Amino acid sequence: MASDSMFLLAGVSLLSAMQMGYLARRVGLSRIAHKVMPPSVTGPPEFERTFRAHQNCVECYPVFLVTLWTCGVFFSEVAAAGGGLMYIIARQIYFNGYVKSNKKRLPGFYLTITVFVILSLLGLTGILCGILHKYFNIHL
Amino acid sequence: MASDSMFLLAGVSLLSAMQMGYLARRVGLSRIAHKVMPPSVTGPPEFERTFRAHQNCVECYPVFLVTLWTCGVFFSEVAAAGGGLMYIIARQIYFNGYVKSNKKRLPGFYLTITVFVILSLLGLTGILCGILHKYFNIHL
Amino acid sequence: MASDSMFLLAGVSLLSAMQMGYLARRVGLSRIAHKVMPPSVTGPPEFERTFRAHQNCVECYPVFLVTLWTCGVFFSEVAAAGGGLMYIIARQIYFNGYVKSNKKRLPGFYLTITVFVILSLLGLTGILCGILHKYFNIHL
Repeated sequence: MASDSMFLLAGVSLLSAMQMGYLARRVGLSRIAHKVMPPSVTGPPEFERTFRAHQNCVECYPVFLVTLWTCGVFFSEVAAAGGGLMYIIARQIYFNGYVKSNKKRLPGFYLTITVFVILSLLGLTGILCGILHKYFNIHL
Repeated sequence: MASDSMFLLAGVSLLSAMQMGYLARRVGLSRIAHKVMPPSVTGPPEFERTFRAHQNCVECYPVFLVTLWTCGVFFSEVAAAGGGLMYIIARQIYFNGYVKSNKKRLPGFYLTITVFVILSLLGLTGILCGILHKYFNIHL
Repeated sequence: MASDSMFLLAGVSLLSAMQMGYLARRVGLSRIAHKVMPPSVTGPPEFERTFRAHQNCVECYPVFLVTLWTCGVFFSEVAAAGGGLMYIIARQIYFNGYVKSNKKRLPGFYLTITVFVILSLLGLTGILCGILHKYFNIHL
C-alpha cells in the first residue's frame, strides 16, 4: 500500500471528471441539434438515447471513483490507474455506441462491467488483507 | 483522528458501491419483466417505482460518501463505519419498499435521513474541533 | 502539497453535501406545492424546472468533488476551498434562477463552468508537476 502522493489515481480521476463534462456537453449539443429545450428530456429517439447514455454515466461515476481508489490505495496504484483508463475508454465506446443505436451500447456496457468487477475484486483483496493484518495480526 | 489506513471506511464504501451495482441490476431485471426497453424510462407503475427508487439512491450516493468519510476521518472510523452499514440497510429497505408501493418507501427513507443527520453532525463536530485546534490553537 | 489534515476541504465538502440535501428538500416541497406525487417526475413547468435544476446538481456533484480535492491536495487547499465556496454559491444562483425561468438558469450555469475550469486547471497543474517530480525527477 503506497502512502505517498497518488498522482496517477488523481490524474485518472481528473481525466474522468473532464470526460463527464465532455459527455454533458454532448447532451447539450444534442439538445440544440434536435431542438429539445430544457427542462424537457423527451424528443427524437437519438436525443433520448444520448440523454440516457449520459444519465447512465452519471449513475456509474461515483461507483467508479470508489472502486478506482479502493483498488489504488489498498491493492496497486498502477493496476487501478490502468483500470481507470480502461473505464474511460469503455464509457466513451458505450456513449458513442448508444447515440447510434440501442444495440450498439452493449460492447461498451460489458467492458464497463468487466472493469468494475476487476477493480472491485482487487480492492476487496487489498482491504481484506489489510483488515486481517491490522485487526487479527494475520499476514498473507 | 486516525492517520493510518482506513480499512473499515474503504470496506463500507466498496460494499455500498456493490449495492449500487446490485440496485442497477434490479432496474435492468424490472425492464425485462415489464418489457420496458432502453432508453424509455416510463412504463407500468411497478417499473416506474423501481426506476425512481434507484434514481433516488443515485442522488443520495455521493452525499453518503462525503458524510461517511468526513465522519470517519475527523470524528471516529468505527462510528462512521457503523453509520455506513446502517445506510446500506436503510437504502435496501427503501428500495424494496418503494418497489412494492409508494407508501412503503417511507420507513427506509426516514432511516436514510437519520443516518445522514448523524454522520453529518459527527463529521461537523470533528471538523470544527480540528479548525479551532489548527487555526486558533483552541483545544476542546 | 499539504499532507496534514484537510479541514477546509472537508468542511467545504460537508457544506456542499448539506446543500445537496437542501436542494432535494426543495424538490420535495415543489412536489407538495404542485401536487406531483412520486414516482411521477412530470407536472407543471415550475415543478419540472425545479426537478431538472436538482438533477443537474446531482450530475455535477461528483465532478465537483473530484476537481475540489485534486486542486486542494495537489495545488493549494485555500484556493480549492475558495473555489468550492464559489461553486456552492453558483449552484444556489443556478437553482433559484432555474426555478423562476429557463433563462434565469444561465448566470449560475456559467459561474459553475468557470469554477470547474479553474479548479481543473489548478489541479492539473499540481498533478503534472508532481508526476514530473516523482517519475522524471524534474523540478519546476
